[in-house]
Amino acid sequence: MHPSLATFTDLYELTMAQAYWQEGMAETATFSFFFRSLPPHRGYLVAAGIEPLLAELDGFHFTEEDIAALRQLRRFHEDFLSYLAGVRFTGSVRAVAEGTVVFANEPLLEVTAPILQAQLVETLVVNRLHVYTLLASKAARVRWAAGPQRQVVDFGARRCHGLEAADMAAYSGWLVGFEGTSNVHAGLRYGIPLYGTMAHSFVTAFPHELDAFRAYARTFPDSTTLLVDTYDTVAGIKHALRIAGELQQQGHQLRGIRLDSGDLASLSRIARQLADAAGFPHLQIFASGGIDEYTIEQLVAQRAPIDAFGVGTKYGVSQDAPYGDCAYKLVSYAGRATLKLSEHKQTLPGSKQVYRFYDPTGQMLYDQIALAEEPPPLGGQPLLHEVIREGRRVHPPVSLDASRQYFRQQWASLPEPCKDLHNPVPYDVQLSVRLHQLTKQLTEQLRAELHPPDHTPAG
Amino acid sequence: MHPSLATFTDLYELTMAQAYWQEGMAETATFSFFFRSLPPHRGYLVAAGIEPLLAELDGFHFTEEDIAALRQLRRFHEDFLSYLAGVRFTGSVRAVAEGTVVFANEPLLEVTAPILQAQLVETLVVNRLHVYTLLASKAARVRWAAGPQRQVVDFGARRCHGLEAADMAAYSGWLVGFEGTSNVHAGLRYGIPLYGTMAHSFVTAFPHELDAFRAYARTFPDSTTLLVDTYDTVAGIKHALRIAGELQQQGHQLRGIRLDSGDLASLSRIARQLADAAGFPHLQIFASGGIDEYTIEQLVAQRAPIDAFGVGTKYGVSQDAPYGDCAYKLVSYAGRATLKLSEHKQTLPGSKQVYRFYDPTGQMLYDQIALAEEPPPLGGQPLLHEVIREGRRVHPPVSLDASRQYFRQQWASLPEPCKDLHNPVPYDVQLSVRLHQLTKQLTEQLRAELHPPDHTPAG
Repeated sequence: MHPSLATFTDLYELTMAQAYWQEGMAETATFSFFFRSLPPHRGYLVAAGIEPLLAELDGFHFTEEDIAALRQLRRFHEDFLSYLAGVRFTGSVRAVAEGTVVFANEPLLEVTAPILQAQLVETLVVNRLHVYTLLASKAARVRWAAGPQRQVVDFGARRCHGLEAADMAAYSGWLVGFEGTSNVHAGLRYGIPLYGTMAHSFVTAFPHELDAFRAYARTFPDSTTLLVDTYDTVAGIKHALRIAGELQQQGHQLRGIRLDSGDLASLSRIARQLADAAGFPHLQIFASGGIDEYTIEQLVAQRAPIDAFGVGTKYGVSQDAPYGDCAYKLVSYAGRATLKLSEHKQTLPGSKQVYRFYDPTGQMLYDQIALAEEPPPLGGQPLLHEVIREGRRVHPPVSLDASRQYFRQQWASLPEPCKDLHNPVPYDVQLSVRLHQLTKQLTEQLRAELHPPDHTPAG
Repeated sequence: MHPSLATFTDLYELTMAQAYWQEGMAETATFSFFFRSLPPHRGYLVAAGIEPLLAELDGFHFTEEDIAALRQLRRFHEDFLSYLAGVRFTGSVRAVAEGTVVFANEPLLEVTAPILQAQLVETLVVNRLHVYTLLASKAARVRWAAGPQRQVVDFGARRCHGLEAADMAAYSGWLVGFEGTSNVHAGLRYGIPLYGTMAHSFVTAFPHELDAFRAYARTFPDSTTLLVDTYDTVAGIKHALRIAGELQQQGHQLRGIRLDSGDLASLSRIARQLADAAGFPHLQIFASGGIDEYTIEQLVAQRAPIDAFGVGTKYGVSQDAPYGDCAYKLVSYAGRATLKLSEHKQTLPGSKQVYRFYDPTGQMLYDQIALAEEPPPLGGQPLLHEVIREGRRVHPPVSLDASRQYFRQQWASLPEPCKDLHNPVPYDVQLSVRLHQLTKQLTEQLRAELHPPDHTPAG
């Protein structure tokens, strides 16, 4: 069968839904999605996946085929399945804008809906916001390491965890300022510029490297980047420059060469010197092969004359942080603020707002996490805005290009010391006095209730 | 627009395709997919993703909408686009069976087709085989660490990199012997048994933990597993046992409790003692929360009385090896064996076969990688079999359950020292004399050709 997107849920969401239904628990719940902590070496996160998620919530429903398949599991009441067939998302969603810089414990998104609905979308919400945010955060680091003078292109498609993940990587890279992607599916889907060079297989399909280079240059005389490391990189560079000369005689220009292995700092220097000496100062040097923000930082520090980076595997799987410690937690039900106390996993109760404070030059000063019901503090800019009300989008979807523009502003306001790749200066995030008090009060109340004299094991 | 699966390709596959087309290069090519090395701590890999990939190759073609979108890129010749619209996969594929244990440099799959076709499917082939194989390999480690007495269930859905990746994790876990998954989408799609307990949100939605437990037990009186760590784990265990007693009086049985945080070894011991003392020796103890093969190994070594593990995030993203060093390389074109020499990335030329040798008890002894054209060595079992011929499946697709059975046999024949989680004994993989000679001869020939006196840079 072909289960619908609504079935992308953990089984317990459905069993809990039946319990809520059977118990008549139809009050309003608020769930909050946030990262408990920043992944290693990260000084910030870039919130992403919100726009794609909102599009998916829009049409949320179980199909007849889903219901029939769930029936065959023989776990659910028939009346509950009939009810489930009619469930649509009728709640509200508040979220930060796609591309907002966020920190630990700050909600990226809050869902307020009848508890059954808000619970059912948990897996979907977490799955989307988690990976998009990890990828956008990794991409921002890569983009920053490369600096404004060098291009960065997503080459992750083949090693991302699926086609969908590859599209997420292309999207997230574009969001934070990559120049494009090699992934044609994503390029066509999102209108992201497409980049490509050539593969080793093309070179080895010809008896000689020069024949391969000539054939490619014949096909794309004005947009060829030649891959030079198939056999011997320095010999490959010389072959490429020979092609550059041949193209020049025909009124064309070789665009660039790509280095994909070896010592990229010294090979790029050799390539630059040979190209300049041969009269091709505009020949672009493209580097790829195991590149991430750390490699780029080193190459830039070594003043390697590289014009563009293709970031593949290590970007596409967010190699040094393939997961983040995020959660979608119930923070209020039927007007009562809730929290959990589990070891190292205590949460903050109540629906929240995040206020951001800026200095007069527009630099971010600090954030305050407050209860949504509190009056806004003077000078604080709220980050969460209502985006879905009674199941409908409040505004038209924000385009990826508009989010890309928005991210650029966000990024400019983030203090440079927070951007460091190794030991970022922690950004100051405060809790409001009322949030702090509520957390303390609820914690004490729950602890007191946990050990009343009558609570001994049965048996 | 909605680009089709055929567009899930790196741009250079399409530009190279146009170059092959323009140059009239329509000869047969063989590409080989293999892992250059095993990821850290791995003694083997479990080949997976082959059956899903074959299903995708079956219908490979560009839609009219794809072609129209590619036209708008203004990079391709109109005649080439017309040609592309008619391209179908008409080649042959040889592959190991889904669930085969493989090692570095052994081809998992070889594609033999007109070079343009074999090139176009590169991104798709690598994307699928890479992540499925990583996940199946991680799952095999987890399954092995848990031992035959304890259940293992995939809980990765929310942290996997997308819905597609979550389904891949559920599939891969089931392939190597997990008991099931929490992912309803995957369960319905593949017929994998579904497992679920309850979430902290369910507990916090009630004023008191006991109320939450009672409500859940009312809804599922014979299949309830109670999550006990929301506030205080030991108090939660006592509450659960009280529910167990209440259910027993009504003729039902509490199935289990779930521990999701804290010191799982000591908490599981407390839970076991309290449950046994209360007269519930069959109450199942389920553990989750940051669990992977390393955690399981430690808990088993400490004799923690845990009956089942839910493996989520660290399994679902293959946390300690989120990518592997794999490649899809041209190994022959137009009858000529090819290779590349790039630093640390040299490949082996020619279409290959892998032969496996067993001792009299059925244990794997060693493998030999040979040229496909060589006569089979005496006693060696070939691992690669033709699965697609002239674009059509040779046999009906193999069901996931059949692959699961096959994996079980494979696993039984893999020597135990190769399964170690930290320092596995390397399995012996040899190259045939002819493959060794061909590699040496081609390498020397290419090196000699690289520096002829006339190959100096132009300019």
